[in-house]
Amino acid sequence: MKILVLNGPNLNLLGQRDKAVYGTVTLAEIEKHLKTCCPELSFEFVQSNHEGELIDALQKARTSGTDGVVANWGGFTHTSVAIHDALELLTIPKVEVHLSNIHAREEFRERSVTGRAMHGVITGFGVQSYVLGVEAVLHLIRADK
Amino acid sequence: MKILVLNGPNLNLLGQRDKAVYGTVTLAEIEKHLKTCCPELSFEFVQSNHEGELIDALQKARTSGTDGVVANWGGFTHTSVAIHDALELLTIPKVEVHLSNIHAREEFRERSVTGRAMHGVITGFGVQSYVLGVEAVLHLIRADK
Amino acid sequence: MKILVLNGPNLNLLGQRDKAVYGTVTLAEIEKHLKTCCPELSFEFVQSNHEGELIDALQKARTSGTDGVVANWGGFTHTSVAIHDALELLTIPKVEVHLSNIHAREEFRERSVTGRAMHGVITGFGVQSYVLGVEAVLHLIRADK
Amino acid sequence: MKILVLNGPNLNLLGQRDKAVYGTVTLAEIEKHLKTCCPELSFEFVQSNHEGELIDALQKARTSGTDGVVANWGGFTHTSVAIHDALELLTIPKVEVHLSNIHAREEFRERSVTGRAMHGVITGFGVQSYVLGVEAVLHLIRADK
Amino acid sequence: MKILVLNGPNLNLLGQRDKAVYGTVTLAEIEKHLKTCCPELSFEFVQSNHEGELIDALQKARTSGTDGVVANWGGFTHTSVAIHDALELLTIPKVEVHLSNIHAREEFRERSVTGRAMHGVITGFGVQSYVLGVEAVLHLIRADK
Amino acid sequence: MKILVLNGPNLNLLGQRDKAVYGTVTLAEIEKHLKTCCPELSFEFVQSNHEGELIDALQKARTSGTDGVVANWGGFTHTSVAIHDALELLTIPKVEVHLSNIHAREEFRERSVTGRAMHGVITGFGVQSYVLGVEAVLHLIRADK
Amino acid sequence: MKILVLNGPNLNLLGQRDKAVYGTVTLAEIEKHLKTCCPELSFEFVQSNHEGELIDALQKARTSGTDGVVANWGGFTHTSVAIHDALELLTIPKVEVHLSNIHAREEFRERSVTGRAMHGVITGFGVQSYVLGVEAVLHLIRADK
Amino acid sequence: MKILVLNGPNLNLLGQRDKAVYGTVTLAEIEKHLKTCCPELSFEFVQSNHEGELIDALQKARTSGTDGVVANWGGFTHTSVAIHDALELLTIPKVEVHLSNIHAREEFRERSVTGRAMHGVITGFGVQSYVLGVEAVLHLIRADK
Amino acid sequence: MKILVLNGPNLNLLGQRDKAVYGTVTLAEIEKHLKTCCPELSFEFVQSNHEGELIDALQKARTSGTDGVVANWGGFTHTSVAIHDALELLTIPKVEVHLSNIHAREEFRERSVTGRAMHGVITGFGVQSYVLGVEAVLHLIRADK
Amino acid sequence: MKILVLNGPNLNLLGQRDKAVYGTVTLAEIEKHLKTCCPELSFEFVQSNHEGELIDALQKARTSGTDGVVANWGGFTHTSVAIHDALELLTIPKVEVHLSNIHAREEFRERSVTGRAMHGVITGFGVQSYVLGVEAVLHLIRADK
Amino acid sequence: MKILVLNGPNLNLLGQRDKAVYGTVTLAEIEKHLKTCCPELSFEFVQSNHEGELIDALQKARTSGTDGVVANWGGFTHTSVAIHDALELLTIPKVEVHLSNIHAREEFRERSVTGRAMHGVITGFGVQSYVLGVEAVLHLIRADK
Amino acid sequence: MKILVLNGPNLNLLGQRDKAVYGTVTLAEIEKHLKTCCPELSFEFVQSNHEGELIDALQKARTSGTDGVVANWGGFTHTSVAIHDALELLTIPKVEVHLSNIHAREEFRERSVTGRAMHGVITGFGVQSYVLGVEAVLHLIRADK
Repeated sequence: MKILVLNGPNLNLLGQRDKAVYGTVTLAEIEKHLKTCCPELSFEFVQSNHEGELIDALQKARTSGTDGVVANWGGFTHTSVAIHDALELLTIPKVEVHLSNIHAREEFRERSVTGRAMHGVITGFGVQSYVLGVEAVLHLIRADK
Repeated sequence: MKILVLNGPNLNLLGQRDKAVYGTVTLAEIEKHLKTCCPELSFEFVQSNHEGELIDALQKARTSGTDGVVANWGGFTHTSVAIHDALELLTIPKVEVHLSNIHAREEFRERSVTGRAMHGVITGFGVQSYVLGVEAVLHLIRADK
Repeated sequence: MKILVLNGPNLNLLGQRDKAVYGTVTLAEIEKHLKTCCPELSFEFVQSNHEGELIDALQKARTSGTDGVVANWGGFTHTSVAIHDALELLTIPKVEVHLSNIHAREEFRERSVTGRAMHGVITGFGVQSYVLGVEAVLHLIRADK
Repeated sequence: MKILVLNGPNLNLLGQRDKAVYGTVTLAEIEKHLKTCCPELSFEFVQSNHEGELIDALQKARTSGTDGVVANWGGFTHTSVAIHDALELLTIPKVEVHLSNIHAREEFRERSVTGRAMHGVITGFGVQSYVLGVEAVLHLIRADK
Repeated sequence: MKILVLNGPNLNLLGQRDKAVYGTVTLAEIEKHLKTCCPELSFEFVQSNHEGELIDALQKARTSGTDGVVANWGGFTHTSVAIHDALELLTIPKVEVHLSNIHAREEFRERSVTGRAMHGVITGFGVQSYVLGVEAVLHLIRADK
Repeated sequence: MKILVLNGPNLNLLGQRDKAVYGTVTLAEIEKHLKTCCPELSFEFVQSNHEGELIDALQKARTSGTDGVVANWGGFTHTSVAIHDALELLTIPKVEVHLSNIHAREEFRERSVTGRAMHGVITGFGVQSYVLGVEAVLHLIRADK
Repeated sequence: MKILVLNGPNLNLLGQRDKAVYGTVTLAEIEKHLKTCCPELSFEFVQSNHEGELIDALQKARTSGTDGVVANWGGFTHTSVAIHDALELLTIPKVEVHLSNIHAREEFRERSVTGRAMHGVITGFGVQSYVLGVEAVLHLIRADK
Repeated sequence: MKILVLNGPNLNLLGQRDKAVYGTVTLAEIEKHLKTCCPELSFEFVQSNHEGELIDALQKARTSGTDGVVANWGGFTHTSVAIHDALELLTIPKVEVHLSNIHAREEFRERSVTGRAMHGVITGFGVQSYVLGVEAVLHLIRADK
Repeated sequence: MKILVLNGPNLNLLGQRDKAVYGTVTLAEIEKHLKTCCPELSFEFVQSNHEGELIDALQKARTSGTDGVVANWGGFTHTSVAIHDALELLTIPKVEVHLSNIHAREEFRERSVTGRAMHGVITGFGVQSYVLGVEAVLHLIRADK
Repeated sequence: MKILVLNGPNLNLLGQRDKAVYGTVTLAEIEKHLKTCCPELSFEFVQSNHEGELIDALQKARTSGTDGVVANWGGFTHTSVAIHDALELLTIPKVEVHLSNIHAREEFRERSVTGRAMHGVITGFGVQSYVLGVEAVLHLIRADK
Repeated sequence: MKILVLNGPNLNLLGQRDKAVYGTVTLAEIEKHLKTCCPELSFEFVQSNHEGELIDALQKARTSGTDGVVANWGGFTHTSVAIHDALELLTIPKVEVHLSNIHAREEFRERSVTGRAMHGVITGFGVQSYVLGVEAVLHLIRADK
Repeated sequence: MKILVLNGPNLNLLGQRDKAVYGTVTLAEIEKHLKTCCPELSFEFVQSNHEGELIDALQKARTSGTDGVVANWGGFTHTSVAIHDALELLTIPKVEVHLSNIHAREEFRERSVTGRAMHGVITGFGVQSYVLGVEAVLHLIRADK
């Protein structure tokens, strides 16, 4: 089973940004943690600060045998109609995750433009959001069958 | 370890409401499912159509040895300042869950008044939202220690 | 044929509130009037200042052989998502009534959150709104057959 | 007793428009139905796609011995300040009716500009809205005496 | 010198509407009053409840030797883009008048869609608004030369 | 093949209004131009400053063997719910055209109330908007077959 | 003289919530403090997390010989139309109090839906708000005579 | 008869500001012009850039035998609640004037906070607005008697 | 102990303005009343229609041995950022008072820009608001020690 | 004559996305179709999911002998100020096209940020929108000469 | 060369207000610092808490040989239309400065009403904002020649 | 000392865009000018139409020995949450500059999303904005030490 884990702008610097809000774990550690938690899964990790590359990755997932997507769109979450449209084209299970609780921050972070086109959203559990996201994707894959 | 599972108005009729959106599983089945999944945990289940009873239950959890809360506030999610204030008084791990993806429905369902005072929110995975919610609470309890 | 007549907060004091707007008839007189108008019908009257009790009553109507609902939600009309959701679970004919014309009062009284989930709304005819409401419910019951 | 029944734009095509929302009865059938229901009443029927003609009809009702008005303003309901002002000049009983439930459709259809100047509004019962409207007008006429 | 005096919907009933707000003078009396005040002027009076007829009258004024326009658009003041566009096509002096002070009434009456395309607006002086309007038009005609 | 070309308020004065925005071609010239471009088509041209007459024309098109509609609603574009409703009753191809680019003018001109019920909108090409509109209608007619 | 002191949701936990904002005094201490300050008065204390019970208490005050009301509606302050309507039915002096200054907190806390139907509002003085509230009620009672 | 003519901020520089909008006449010339037009009237002219001085002048007019007020509040028109409140205390005829048409400029200039408390508003006629304003005040004085 | 009592625009005319709303007591009587109520206190009374003078008075209070401020900002309450900023510079107890209940009037009067920077607000008790305001200030002074 | 045809994010997947809305034609087929329709023209086709690449393409068009632009900005239509600014720098004819009618979809799709800087917009005709777009560009080129 | 440095309300207390935001330098020190930095310039310093005095100062600058203006409008920045209008009358270089970054504070501080009529705005550099402001004015003076 | 000068979309075409607003100087000339003004500084110049490349450049600045940033984000200023978040990760002095005064243009250009995360903003001085920006950065660097 192959899971694509997408990370949007600035998440490559995880562990170095506003530690009170985001914690100290790095993206590499998250990736390692996911591999350890789910050794039976094959992961593909993509991080980009470029909206276009994230869309490209979503489009590629349509034909590359990917079974599910876990994505943290970072700052694009609240503004990108283009990512939203790309998600509509992708019918495999797709789960949005956020490190911090988007309902407890600035008002503009509560609305998720991309989330409209995901199956579900998990927000507020730090690194664990990714682990829960992978579980949720697996659950959706099984439910589909 | 004791987990309080709170369900707001109309969730007692789960499995009978708009099945395309909410599925066919009943609340009793969810409760049974949680017990099966996590036999080592002690669950307390409260469902009420009364906002006041939900607040009472939250307040009682402060002194009853409860270790965490998983709650689906139903229609109160988007309007209840009183539940929000009760949540601020409760410092144990608390996770909000929704069966359907609140970001993909009517605009007024995207904003969660109660979610501001939760540790995190999990939305869109049907019954599995509760399972993920329990896991998230356990993770938060462990992280606290 | 059994009709449930629901009255929300403060309608128990009818006849004593702002008489220029609401008139001087009491709720007991309305109930008596309905029985006199429609002797062939069986009425159940519920009034409550508690949102939860009104939801309970709606839920009970699903299995108690009730054929239709006439409801005046009072102050909950403009705010209660929970009553709205309870109404969605009830498929028998349901008609909302108001004593005064909600389109001719404060702006916030024009929008009816509960009315979205009713079959129709009758507003502005004092006690007669209830009589017309019962007629409308009867019409909907007949049309269903 | 003389009742003026006013119908606004496109209601002449009733029975041919979006049948899921408006049903299949034609305006002529409604008129016939009203005459049958209330043989003791004298009806005047006016339908027009012209806002000005509807205002003219309202003004004429002031001096033509009309005892009450039942009106479905169609698309003018939500925008016409001019009809609203004409209604303020007419003190006989006047009731607004709608075939579909305006509280359950697009948001802009919930607000009734004309309804502010009516005695009451009946919405959501198809052709029966007209019958209930006539009854309501009769009730208001009697209450006035 | 020829002045066109335009009156919109319901102004034919002047003197009969909400007398506390609009006074008791009739439109015929206003017309007579204007003729008496300004015997040297030739007046054309048009009143209509039809938006289209008012636009027609404005268009005709372009080629009929009219020197100025005084207009009270009534309920169309706040909504008619079409009258606004017709006014832009007419370059002779044009003054909007209102009997009551539109700044002291409902909020939606403060904005004048038509007023954007007039040379000026005079509001709040009852019948005298028309007299001042004619004076203002004469002043604008003289200033143009 | 019969095409109805509808023009709303003030378009009879085309060529005389704000020439920087609308150009110098008259409506008669447009009509002539269309006939020349498409000699095989039968055109019916209706221009009116009256909203009601435009609705009448739309309704007549339902039974007069009209194959398609090209319409420039002028100032009614942004406000008329009644024309919108009339359009919903008409299922033949219908295309909205504008001389100027409505996205590049005042903010309130960007939203098209009528456009919601058209098949498409062409805006910004002066007289050529009509020619393209006729082409688009022909294309839709052919695609329907 | 009998004064009803009403406290809304979560005020039973006073002294335990966000101490920087609300202080450390408990509700029992407030009640004791009021009795000490005003030994000549008879107090009735009601606290509830249930909106319906607060409405019940207001309604009972109409016939129980209560001379005035001091109320802190907690989270219901900003949303409850039903409490607002219950207050309109109660003509004895009624004063709203808040521990913290509602004008200096989140924007949504500045508007008081219930306050519209009170005689006055006192906000920002901690426990002393209650003492001032009782004084204000006494003043209003005396002024009424 | 004594008329107070008030001018708000920057009107002392009239004739020097944006001449396309405001013309080239100075405030002194306006004052002279008014004296010439109405030799039988006694004028008091006050111009100030200080909101407080304008309020002082309005208050003094209550006891100084002033018969009417003509005022151009300049930039305070759209923001000053304090001037609005001072006007409410003054019951003699009071007319607001503007040189340019406030309905044809920036959106925020259309709303007149002060105008709510005036008898009427005259806007768009340059210096002539003052002359018409004096006439309107005289008319109101005579109508009062 | 020295208390500064500040009154904003038009409060010098108290007792003469809209008596149904504000009562008939004059500012001089309020000042006398306060001296009588609290003979042990030293009062400084400042009233001004000038926003700048009120700011000057607030600034002077920082170094003049003033122990507390009671202020009624009148029309500046809802608009003055400058007074708000001056209040932030003053750390002694400061209480805002209003004669009428600002929550029961026009919507724009509910928001208090100045109130954000006060310790508390007392609104709706006529002259008694000042007495309660002084008490509240004394309480805050004592609590500070 | 050289025409640049630009396509924004996700349009490379045309024919595979929400077929009810967008149809089944692919982008390659559109390009082939345009070449067949207009064999005398030289086309350059650019599709990108990267906002920056689309801006680069627009900038290059300034110096590469391009005579006109037809562009479908996809999801960037409603948000990209940067593309808008790039368009302002390009003075050759430029036409925006959309497959579906943007006036008949979600509200946020009606506003076109990019459309403000285009000569015109054609929306709602599927693939034919491109053909009409090319025609419109040719018309604009000819009109320029 | 003569530069006018204007400071609005509360800036006379600089160095004593919210030191985390505004720093500890006093206004006198700023003035001294500017004289030291630019010994070749002649400075005029005006600080006032009175909006009217600031307008007076701007007006005087028109005829007093002033070459440029540096202004910090304090709390008037976000509300004063009157200062905005005074600035429009002054054509010499004028630069607005702020100590703190207005884009990083409360939302209502981001919009600058006065800034619309300045040549530019410099915000966020503490005292250095004034130094940069003087430089910018000098640059604009030189660019004008 | 090393300064990074970032320029967003379309600024590579400086000198060629709307010359009335932006002037005729090119980006290359600005770069040369900065080098001439500050020969002691080492500059790195990056211009990109790609949001992602600008974020990459900001991230690189964290570890490349860069001492400060001067940035003109162009069209991204008003929309990019992603650049805002990247700026929060960068703690060296960072100053936003704009050629034109963003407070004097379209309303949507006044709000700076990126500016919230900068130390300060300089807007309206053409090329000189960059020079002042460099000075401001130097000042911040020195103040840090």
